[in-house]
Amino acid sequence: MTIGIGLLGLGTVGAGVAGILASPAGRHPLVGELAIKRVAVRDLNRPRPIDLPAAILSTDAEAVVDDPSVDIVVEVMGGLEPARSLILRAIAAGKPVVTANKAVIARYGEEIAAAAAAKGVYVLIEAAVGGGIPIIEPLKQSLGGNRITKVSGIINGTTNYILSRMADEGAAYGSVLADAQELGYAEADPAADVEGADAADKIAILTALAFGGSVPRSAIPTEGINRLDARDVGYAAQLGYVVKLLAVAENPGGAANSAQSAASQALDVRVHPTLLPKSHPLAGVYGVNNAILVEGDPVGQVMFYGPGAGAGPTASAVVADILNIAGIWAVARPGVAGPGASGAGAALDPLLAASRWRQCHLIDSAQTRHRNYIRLRTSDEAGVIGKIGSCFGAAGVSIQSIMQFEAQGERAEIVVITHEVLEANFRQALLAIEALADVQAVEACLRTL
Amino acid sequence: MTIGIGLLGLGTVGAGVAGILASPAGRHPLVGELAIKRVAVRDLNRPRPIDLPAAILSTDAEAVVDDPSVDIVVEVMGGLEPARSLILRAIAAGKPVVTANKAVIARYGEEIAAAAAAKGVYVLIEAAVGGGIPIIEPLKQSLGGNRITKVSGIINGTTNYILSRMADEGAAYGSVLADAQELGYAEADPAADVEGADAADKIAILTALAFGGSVPRSAIPTEGINRLDARDVGYAAQLGYVVKLLAVAENPGGAANSAQSAASQALDVRVHPTLLPKSHPLAGVYGVNNAILVEGDPVGQVMFYGPGAGAGPTASAVVADILNIAGIWAVARPGVAGPGASGAGAALDPLLAASRWRQCHLIDSAQTRHRNYIRLRTSDEAGVIGKIGSCFGAAGVSIQSIMQFEAQGERAEIVVITHEVLEANFRQALLAIEALADVQAVEACLRTL
Repeated sequence: MTIGIGLLGLGTVGAGVAGILASPAGRHPLVGELAIKRVAVRDLNRPRPIDLPAAILSTDAEAVVDDPSVDIVVEVMGGLEPARSLILRAIAAGKPVVTANKAVIARYGEEIAAAAAAKGVYVLIEAAVGGGIPIIEPLKQSLGGNRITKVSGIINGTTNYILSRMADEGAAYGSVLADAQELGYAEADPAADVEGADAADKIAILTALAFGGSVPRSAIPTEGINRLDARDVGYAAQLGYVVKLLAVAENPGGAANSAQSAASQALDVRVHPTLLPKSHPLAGVYGVNNAILVEGDPVGQVMFYGPGAGAGPTASAVVADILNIAGIWAVARPGVAGPGASGAGAALDPLLAASRWRQCHLIDSAQTRHRNYIRLRTSDEAGVIGKIGSCFGAAGVSIQSIMQFEAQGERAEIVVITHEVLEANFRQALLAIEALADVQAVEACLRTL
Repeated sequence: MTIGIGLLGLGTVGAGVAGILASPAGRHPLVGELAIKRVAVRDLNRPRPIDLPAAILSTDAEAVVDDPSVDIVVEVMGGLEPARSLILRAIAAGKPVVTANKAVIARYGEEIAAAAAAKGVYVLIEAAVGGGIPIIEPLKQSLGGNRITKVSGIINGTTNYILSRMADEGAAYGSVLADAQELGYAEADPAADVEGADAADKIAILTALAFGGSVPRSAIPTEGINRLDARDVGYAAQLGYVVKLLAVAENPGGAANSAQSAASQALDVRVHPTLLPKSHPLAGVYGVNNAILVEGDPVGQVMFYGPGAGAGPTASAVVADILNIAGIWAVARPGVAGPGASGAGAALDPLLAASRWRQCHLIDSAQTRHRNYIRLRTSDEAGVIGKIGSCFGAAGVSIQSIMQFEAQGERAEIVVITHEVLEANFRQALLAIEALADVQAVEACLRTL
């Protein structure tokens, strides 16, 4: 059988996918059964890194979706629209979709999943998180026996590149960002990366897969690295930590809580710069690499690591999804006669389809428990540390360490690391500290593992 | 639908599987559709960590396989026989098999795969390599679009535990092994672990999946850690390396070679202690953890990390396989009427079935290229280093560093690290060096990355 692929977009990822399909030798033999039938592009005359017959290119993306020779629609154009509408159009036509579009899936995942379930088609998204790292399929196909307690990851390569260089060079955020833009590691408008929105999109997607239910994307507490001070990266290093932009989704009650059949599962999902002990598995993830740590019962901790972006890795993930659909079509293909036919209305593989099976909601962040790093600018007077300690103590916040780092003139810098404490108590302590006459400013406040 | 599971063995892994199936809440809903129908045990009266109805226990393993209520046979008894025969019996009865038995699969994988293909049943083996780490399914279901060039891994937890402690404590192999045995990290008869056979079993399995064809298990060059001297672990550390027992399978020609349609693909597969630069992704894998690094075109390097053994992690992998079969049966179940039926003779998902698609063979090791670490005991006389260097030079072996480490009385210790050189040339140089009057012994010879 030949399976016809319709490609929406022929940028670097699209060209990467076309390159794989055009050279099947040495890959899984199923690759040889895939053929690109139509490709939607914005401009027919633009030079491209890959040679495709002019006749299969079109500027009419809807016509590509509708083309009867197209069995699977691969959306690699990016952006919210027309990507979302084209995905829904493919589903309505009964065609499975493979997409690398994390923004669309994070925002319209529920709408798309519902439409796909109603039509009995797959919408696969391995390329949407972690570039070439297999993480979506392992979550669906290899970890279903577990009660997942936590997913935490470095899932934005741009910010990890910037943080790695800030740590190595002691350089300021702004200068490293400018350099990263020049080198092509950060976009001209870096907001989605550096403010954490991209990581929030991706953790929203991982949350739904790991916990079986989604949380509202717009409500995920998100803090980027754009206000991170190089001083804190430096102090963290002296204290045995590295600073990473972490995206986290966890069941605050752990595996035991997960086993409860509550009407809705409370989850703590967030994105923020985080101090990781240097021995932590994610602490060694360097440069543009990504890694995702999954914790569950009974598997323990497993980690997936690799290139988080790039044409080749992302194309590898897109082709993985196409192959999964092709593989299952060898067993049964809805509505198609032949060896793999099972007649119209064939069911979906519930692992690959990854339908939601649980209600989830975001927990009130005041009720979460975390360790914290705080840097304060204070007057350089005896007794300041005592007063700060008292504020924490009065709020029930237990301190691991409190250190004065440098004094210049009348100014001192004090860094506090707390034990794991209730966020509500921590906020109460901060208010009291800010009210102290000796404290000029709370200059940094970061989560700590 | 309920899917009946027949469990062969109720040791720690079997009990772990039973524990997951007995507590489906909070796991993928498909877990709730699995039910243990029969369990084969050696002794009916032994106390067990899990409560199962006495009526489903049996000492007759064949009867468990044959039981009509058993749809999937899960082999977690270990050992070569009767495990192999029971697996073949299940296949002959048209029942898919899930096994954690790396020894059987590494030795009889071809026989079992051929029988399974003939009968159209799955034999799934996620638990056979890497404990709870998803590696088998990602290789099959997420990386098929790639030309795999190399798979290298730390896939034996016992030896990694011993090596980690040798590096930390500067302790001798024998004393750490004795301690590991006392703590339960090494078996009373540690041969299969410390001599490398277990790692060789596992790399044989990974080779077949990554490259699409198998190599003879018995021909894989295998060197364990049982003759490793603590001195070399210490010197390696001083030179910026850590010593790990690495299992490697690579296409010596790389991706371009993989694209050639040779009659048979030459592979370099081996197990040996290896010096890894401390910056290498596998260098930080510590204690009983495992990690597998997969390199391919176009994905680049991806790594899978986690607990390489233990009842919980291994049970997680076994249940993953059961779920994959259950998931595909929701689409089409051979010979069974109902919503997912497609009639007898339904095809297998070619990704999940992972049939061989290429001939492979082991390359002549003399023709491989590697970096090497050598430690020599020599007389402490001027000119020795020059003579050794000349031997390497005459054989065309390029040296990266040559260092005298310590001299005691008339004895000196010289450590050489070569660049990447042809193994045949390296062996020729070693023969010449051993013949030097000033060289008392070649005391260690290790591969280096």
